[in-house]
Amino acid sequence: MSLAEFDLIEHIRRRLPARDDVVLGIGDDAALLRLPESRQLAVTADTLNAGVHFPHATAPADIGWKALAVNLSDLAAMGAQPAWCTLALSLPKADPDWLDAFIDGFLELALLHRTALVGGDTTRGPLSISVTAVGWVEPGKALRRDGAQPGDDVWVTGTLGDAAAALRLWQAGLPAPDALMARLDRPTPRVETGRTLNAIAHACIDLSDGLLADLGHICTRSSVAAEIELDALPASDTLREHFDQSTRWQLQTGGGDDYELCFTAPAQARDAIAALAREGAASVSRIGRLVAGAGIRAFDANGGCWHPERAGYEHFFRTDPAV
Amino acid sequence: MSLAEFDLIEHIRRRLPARDDVVLGIGDDAALLRLPESRQLAVTADTLNAGVHFPHATAPADIGWKALAVNLSDLAAMGAQPAWCTLALSLPKADPDWLDAFIDGFLELALLHRTALVGGDTTRGPLSISVTAVGWVEPGKALRRDGAQPGDDVWVTGTLGDAAAALRLWQAGLPAPDALMARLDRPTPRVETGRTLNAIAHACIDLSDGLLADLGHICTRSSVAAEIELDALPASDTLREHFDQSTRWQLQTGGGDDYELCFTAPAQARDAIAALAREGAASVSRIGRLVAGAGIRAFDANGGCWHPERAGYEHFFRTDPAV
Repeated sequence: MSLAEFDLIEHIRRRLPARDDVVLGIGDDAALLRLPESRQLAVTADTLNAGVHFPHATAPADIGWKALAVNLSDLAAMGAQPAWCTLALSLPKADPDWLDAFIDGFLELALLHRTALVGGDTTRGPLSISVTAVGWVEPGKALRRDGAQPGDDVWVTGTLGDAAAALRLWQAGLPAPDALMARLDRPTPRVETGRTLNAIAHACIDLSDGLLADLGHICTRSSVAAEIELDALPASDTLREHFDQSTRWQLQTGGGDDYELCFTAPAQARDAIAALAREGAASVSRIGRLVAGAGIRAFDANGGCWHPERAGYEHFFRTDPAV
Repeated sequence: MSLAEFDLIEHIRRRLPARDDVVLGIGDDAALLRLPESRQLAVTADTLNAGVHFPHATAPADIGWKALAVNLSDLAAMGAQPAWCTLALSLPKADPDWLDAFIDGFLELALLHRTALVGGDTTRGPLSISVTAVGWVEPGKALRRDGAQPGDDVWVTGTLGDAAAALRLWQAGLPAPDALMARLDRPTPRVETGRTLNAIAHACIDLSDGLLADLGHICTRSSVAAEIELDALPASDTLREHFDQSTRWQLQTGGGDDYELCFTAPAQARDAIAALAREGAASVSRIGRLVAGAGIRAFDANGGCWHPERAGYEHFFRTDPAV
């Protein structure tokens, strides 16, 4: 069965929830949106391609969730409140069942964060999903990469390495525990934590390419160096069960796709940050500090400097063995 | 030669012009944008895929121009002022020469309309370009599809059929005159005309899928019918030279990719609309009228009702013989 482009859009449109500030949603040349006063817009765009950013075998609902999640994660890393998004979907063929499941996953996350899908385009082509997400933030409050200062603590939310572990097991043809696969397929954008941090943190980034690569961006943009305590890296029980310490550290420092937040804040903010976690937002772990200089050094418990095999990966070169 | 994703983004970033309301551009998790007061946002997203929306042999600068043009055309059709855009670019390989030429074309049009590229993503995959364009419009002034009224005149800007003629010649392996190819490869978004029309027109749409298909959307959304005078359809000299009347009408009513505006306005606005064209915006032609009912009828000079072989095309099924 196949559907024309217009029918695909109608098919999606019928399933969308309403939002008060959407004056005109999908179905005209452009959407019309009412803005909150005294806010700046935060805008981000991320693409997922089959075989590059997710295995071809990934369930369509998980692809839908993840396509939005990686964008909401970018808004979270700015301390922004998600509001609207557009979706450009290329599909090899118009398959209503696949599309329904995809939209299920997409809308499940959209509803959690009251994010309205206001525009889009469906085209024929290899499976590819581009989302642009738009949110807003109070002027001057955004969490940028260039605000970090020597003396800041370095923090991360949640646990690190689970998504990379799932990918490594899957690539090796081994079964990955559900707890790890869920982290790869359904990452949790830390929206509420980002919103709260924008009154506390100096700098923030989301961990899409791996801790060393992403924290490296903060260091470069802020002209600081970082020292990381490997023992302080938060790991899930499942990760500890399945991998030895060296592999775990490699996954935690170099693996991407966790979509946790990495942020820096002055030592005086420690109590406020601990309170954050108690109030129900994501757990947080203090994993190191910023110092003058450049680059990142990672230390084990004996103070030895550890050199991971690779510092993050580049999506552009990542290959899918199933292709 | 190949470049990593981050280098590709840097490569693009170095070539971007500045815009005062861009607080933070490419290079962080999201861009930060300052908003004009008392405006609504207009947001649109369109994708071009190689072999579906343009022939594989299209020059990269033309692809860059067209990827932005089709989105600015959507903003024009809303009467909105373009401001910012994001670009999601999937490339089979990182080719700096190709990318430079692509960005040349993209920025050439962006500069014409002071549209800042504020975010994006480059990924590995079959050539595909998704742009989300954001503009603003005065509240209540947007040109929607659902505002047309019986008794309105139907107008179009520019000339119709050139882009479809170029595609037809190219698909047949025949040389297409430059004047036609330019319309296919470098469509002109009617931004200034759209801005002026938002004080005059009742409804508007851009002609991406063909006059009958696109005017059909206005009729459906506004619950009106349209009567079109085929002799009134504006045709370029080149189109008249190369095609007989029947083929020309078919191209003008059913062919897509012209990206002219089709709008409706009350008869009292005729002088104002004629003045528009004299003041240097696009030429305009009155091609018919709206009546009560549903559907579109097209008449020749003898009052005979003409049935085009196909009423518009669906991008989703369009194929590229070169694939």
